[in-house]
Amino acid sequence: MVLNEIKDFLKSKISKHRNYAIPQLWIENHKKIFNDIVEEKEGKIFVDPYEFFYSAISFILDKSEKKDYSKSLGILNGENNPNWFNKSVVYGSLPRMTAAYNHKGFGTFEETDILGFKEAGTFLKMIPLLLHLKSFNVNTLYMLPVSKSSNLFKKGSIGSPYAVKNPLVLDESYHDPLLEDFNVETEFKALVEAAHILGIRVILDFIPRTASRDSDIIREHPDWFYWIKIDDLATYKPPRIEELPFKIPDEKDLDIIYRNSEVRNHLKKFVDSPDKIDPVKWEKVKNMDGNILVNIIREFGIVTPPGFSDWVNDNQPTWDDVTFLRLYLDNPIAAKKFVPETQKPYVLFDVIKASKFPGSIPNLELWNYLSDIIPSYQKRFGIDGARIDMGHALPSKLQEMIISKAKDNDPSFVFIAEELEMNNDEKSKNDGYHAILGNTWYSVARREEFYKLVEETSINMKLPFLASAETPDTPRIAAREFGNKLKYLGPFLLYFLPNGVPYINSGQELGEIQPMNLGLDNTIWGKTVLPPDDEFYAKLAFFDHYVLHWNTYDKELYSFLKNLMNEREKYKDFIFNGKFRYVYFNYQDGFLANYSYWIEEKGILIIANLDFSWKREFEVFVDKTKGKEINILNAKIWDKKGEIPIISPSNIIKLTLNPGDFCILKINVD
Amino acid sequence: MVLNEIKDFLKSKISKHRNYAIPQLWIENHKKIFNDIVEEKEGKIFVDPYEFFYSAISFILDKSEKKDYSKSLGILNGENNPNWFNKSVVYGSLPRMTAAYNHKGFGTFEETDILGFKEAGTFLKMIPLLLHLKSFNVNTLYMLPVSKSSNLFKKGSIGSPYAVKNPLVLDESYHDPLLEDFNVETEFKALVEAAHILGIRVILDFIPRTASRDSDIIREHPDWFYWIKIDDLATYKPPRIEELPFKIPDEKDLDIIYRNSEVRNHLKKFVDSPDKIDPVKWEKVKNMDGNILVNIIREFGIVTPPGFSDWVNDNQPTWDDVTFLRLYLDNPIAAKKFVPETQKPYVLFDVIKASKFPGSIPNLELWNYLSDIIPSYQKRFGIDGARIDMGHALPSKLQEMIISKAKDNDPSFVFIAEELEMNNDEKSKNDGYHAILGNTWYSVARREEFYKLVEETSINMKLPFLASAETPDTPRIAAREFGNKLKYLGPFLLYFLPNGVPYINSGQELGEIQPMNLGLDNTIWGKTVLPPDDEFYAKLAFFDHYVLHWNTYDKELYSFLKNLMNEREKYKDFIFNGKFRYVYFNYQDGFLANYSYWIEEKGILIIANLDFSWKREFEVFVDKTKGKEINILNAKIWDKKGEIPIISPSNIIKLTLNPGDFCILKINVD
Repeated sequence: MVLNEIKDFLKSKISKHRNYAIPQLWIENHKKIFNDIVEEKEGKIFVDPYEFFYSAISFILDKSEKKDYSKSLGILNGENNPNWFNKSVVYGSLPRMTAAYNHKGFGTFEETDILGFKEAGTFLKMIPLLLHLKSFNVNTLYMLPVSKSSNLFKKGSIGSPYAVKNPLVLDESYHDPLLEDFNVETEFKALVEAAHILGIRVILDFIPRTASRDSDIIREHPDWFYWIKIDDLATYKPPRIEELPFKIPDEKDLDIIYRNSEVRNHLKKFVDSPDKIDPVKWEKVKNMDGNILVNIIREFGIVTPPGFSDWVNDNQPTWDDVTFLRLYLDNPIAAKKFVPETQKPYVLFDVIKASKFPGSIPNLELWNYLSDIIPSYQKRFGIDGARIDMGHALPSKLQEMIISKAKDNDPSFVFIAEELEMNNDEKSKNDGYHAILGNTWYSVARREEFYKLVEETSINMKLPFLASAETPDTPRIAAREFGNKLKYLGPFLLYFLPNGVPYINSGQELGEIQPMNLGLDNTIWGKTVLPPDDEFYAKLAFFDHYVLHWNTYDKELYSFLKNLMNEREKYKDFIFNGKFRYVYFNYQDGFLANYSYWIEEKGILIIANLDFSWKREFEVFVDKTKGKEINILNAKIWDKKGEIPIISPSNIIKLTLNPGDFCILKINVD
Repeated sequence: MVLNEIKDFLKSKISKHRNYAIPQLWIENHKKIFNDIVEEKEGKIFVDPYEFFYSAISFILDKSEKKDYSKSLGILNGENNPNWFNKSVVYGSLPRMTAAYNHKGFGTFEETDILGFKEAGTFLKMIPLLLHLKSFNVNTLYMLPVSKSSNLFKKGSIGSPYAVKNPLVLDESYHDPLLEDFNVETEFKALVEAAHILGIRVILDFIPRTASRDSDIIREHPDWFYWIKIDDLATYKPPRIEELPFKIPDEKDLDIIYRNSEVRNHLKKFVDSPDKIDPVKWEKVKNMDGNILVNIIREFGIVTPPGFSDWVNDNQPTWDDVTFLRLYLDNPIAAKKFVPETQKPYVLFDVIKASKFPGSIPNLELWNYLSDIIPSYQKRFGIDGARIDMGHALPSKLQEMIISKAKDNDPSFVFIAEELEMNNDEKSKNDGYHAILGNTWYSVARREEFYKLVEETSINMKLPFLASAETPDTPRIAAREFGNKLKYLGPFLLYFLPNGVPYINSGQELGEIQPMNLGLDNTIWGKTVLPPDDEFYAKLAFFDHYVLHWNTYDKELYSFLKNLMNEREKYKDFIFNGKFRYVYFNYQDGFLANYSYWIEEKGILIIANLDFSWKREFEVFVDKTKGKEINILNAKIWDKKGEIPIISPSNIIKLTLNPGDFCILKINVD
């Protein structure tokens, strides 16, 4: 295992020079491992970094068996299906953020600091953080893209992880300089090994539809990209179709679209790829030093265009940091009659919605390339699953190729669809996915939607969904209206849902309020929620360095989430194998969210008051809930404050829930 | 002249490829020069950059005479005193901001973009902007520091101009890649030449008290700096003196200070300079590649400490990007009895307030170095004046050296003191300064203070002061409470004041609301005044790139300021040579600000209503104002809307001023 090699290297470097600051929380739950190696100076925790990482890795390696942890846990366990995901608890992380910290302990955050410490997150730093995840019973680490990303046309001070410059290569910024000559590939391997030893599976995010404007792929395959004249770039934008509303175009709209004068003007901007324009010159340019796109601009006067939405008349600006890949070698079949033979390969609403408007000649070489990306990660690192970004816009055949190649290697491999509509569960299932993202983060912030999710939608789902109070794209739950209630209530109701896969969004456990991106259910004001003297005010982790508030975290929430996840762990057999029943009350006004699970006469009842203004006093009819009168030997109530027994419980139990409060009512369980 | 060389180079590169976007305002006032070389695409102005700069420089060179414009204008004009400054109109600029623009015309700002254009400000780009300044009758360009600055411990994405890494060298970032092999020194020389041809003098900002933490000076003179152990840096901060209030210490406080346990602990952190610790090793380390401070930290485990305020118990955080220079080779005389012989050179409130607590052995080599900086700029570029940062904290002898050396070279050279107290005018004058910054930007936002400034303070000043509605350190006038009124009223009342030198803060003429720094009269919320979807939301030009809102500027304000400066130009003889008189009204309630200037029976009366809620109807007694009955042949009123004559004026003129409105009443002038 490379984890052993790294351990040995770290050991050789231990000097007991304690000058590396870390958050208390990074060691909080494993004091036995770390207690003797930390030094406190004026409230700050310092360690010898080599000793710190050595200690964490030794602790993890001590738990290892004689297994090849660079294989997926499914393969290691001989699993032939991806059902493990149904029972997982997911922690979603952009590692450059999750593991970021000011290790020099003074001044402000720097990507790499004057002492040579990488303050941005690294794969090495993610290893001790796995212990942090374990304290929430996390068994699946979902990472946002960690592949090489581009810094061209970036929206903040660093490139977005979704502007992928090379999907096959890991981003160099994840190398930790403490590890000197080790490389980022080895370090990622070590992280996956460590996760697997701890029983944590690893899921990665893949983006097959787009590439960064200056993608490494251009060098070998300039014809896999679209090209426009550089002088047209300043005015390049999605054509406005006055005759149409805001919509995804249908086939009948194409006539209107292609007759539009802005569209005709737009189509003229496209040119051939540079290898076609001048093959001899191209051979020289592709091998020049420096950024490939800058060289092409200078030598050919052409450039890859920015992406844009596949909705007509979308007000979103162009997606400046990415460009579309050319999935078909010809135009959409449905558009052929509108486009002259001489038209150069172009981008338009139909072209980019290839799932709906396929061409007739697939760019098979590209499809093979795209569908070999995940297998490469499976072989090199033994990852356990993948989320596919914008899979719904891919030609279905390509989507199939991507899924089946990975499944051939590992039948336990999981595919999560970037599908936000809960009622597209069946479609996603048919497409070969094993789970969807869903939109619980939307429902949780709206009382009626939340009620419907809990009482109706979740139990009827054909696929597991991420039970998330927040995601990297949405507002933080603590920053929502009534966030001080919702940050407890949301996870409570979500994490026990049938078909729900509890999802903790990195930072949620700290009560973080700053979103990572403004993509979903937010406005531009969403980035201004921190006090303006906060070092990371107005910074979004997708576009800037960001350090979680490890030192000023929400202690009450942190403990609550640990307790909640422990409760869930204790009673998971009820969720997975128990009988689902609604809870019966003496009245129901649409504010008392409820569900229960039963194994014989043992039951856990999940009850919450969704009203943030008024308390509810009510009676729980245990017998009706179970469906028959039962013999109640004991009953307990668990809530934010802890657990208390009910004295001489009967089949009718009186409860009071204050605004936004909740409890688990436990019947006949120990 | 190097300006000629640059012109010739630019000419040789003209290709008529118009792909360089510039703001309309950069050509607005000189359409004749530029009209034939611009191309408009969807509302954006594009030029061939070579042709654009060539045209601007040609136009300027056409105005030149056979003179050596690399000398100060004072020397060129044979002036033997700095009185020219009394009559100047100053534009204050941080050139990297003033001349910044997204020249590629698409996407967001980049320091250097994909087309190879430097979007951050350059000296070359400042040259056509001189024409913009001329349209406000500016005749003095004051630039914030343009010397090489440090990127270490920066507060935003780029280093502050006040963290000076090398005061003798210009910052490389000011080189314009359009000029290829020209260097930044030549380009600055060209800018000064162009300014001088246009009659614009150039004043620079110098910072003798501090250096960047990784100053270039360390290499030759490590003993000119203070040093602490790197492991003490995380806890290094100004000691708190519980027994004292927030104050600049007096000699009697030293006893308390030096007995304080935090101070005793603080003093232990200091060590010798690296050359003294190990001279042999130092010889190796000083010649290593890479950042000198990083090498010293690695090899010696010591570091230059951050600066801090010379006030005891100041709540300001440490000044992380600068460190103090060691002005005396021994401890403050007043502190000697408290400090043991063995104490290493240290930083404390008294040490850094060397003007009040001098030592007995001046670091003469350093003093010579510091006082030779301005002469070097005089010789190389012929600059016309200097602002001295924190001059009041310098030993008076050093301050004298700095001023006298520059005056020996050029008796017309101007020194501006960073003195904010208006009543320190006499002290500054005695110290050898020719003007002070003053605090008009503070008064302007407070009705009673403003009234006092106008009616009392300004006429009694012993030195000229900058008549500024805003400065690089203060809130923008347009962002103040009642900013929509004040942005007109402030400049109006200020720019005609006796002893006032009108000061336009770069961007003020555009109605910019985002401050450049939060140093004075602001709170942390001051950085949040832009809408959050603005690309430069929460960015401060001192610490981040910033582009002025050239395309969405305040058109009404812009025209007003041009008109106002033209009025001032027309009547400047009144201000400089006329008799100052208060204006007599039929009543005065402290809201009607007023003053007037008279040359015989011609007068201009400056009148404003400082009340933002209620209008004022009143009578102006022209005779009392002048001091005797006069024969009024004509009278006119100038205000925001233009000028109108008064029909059959008498010695009593009725006026109405709406809230915040103002006018010039002109008596017997053409």
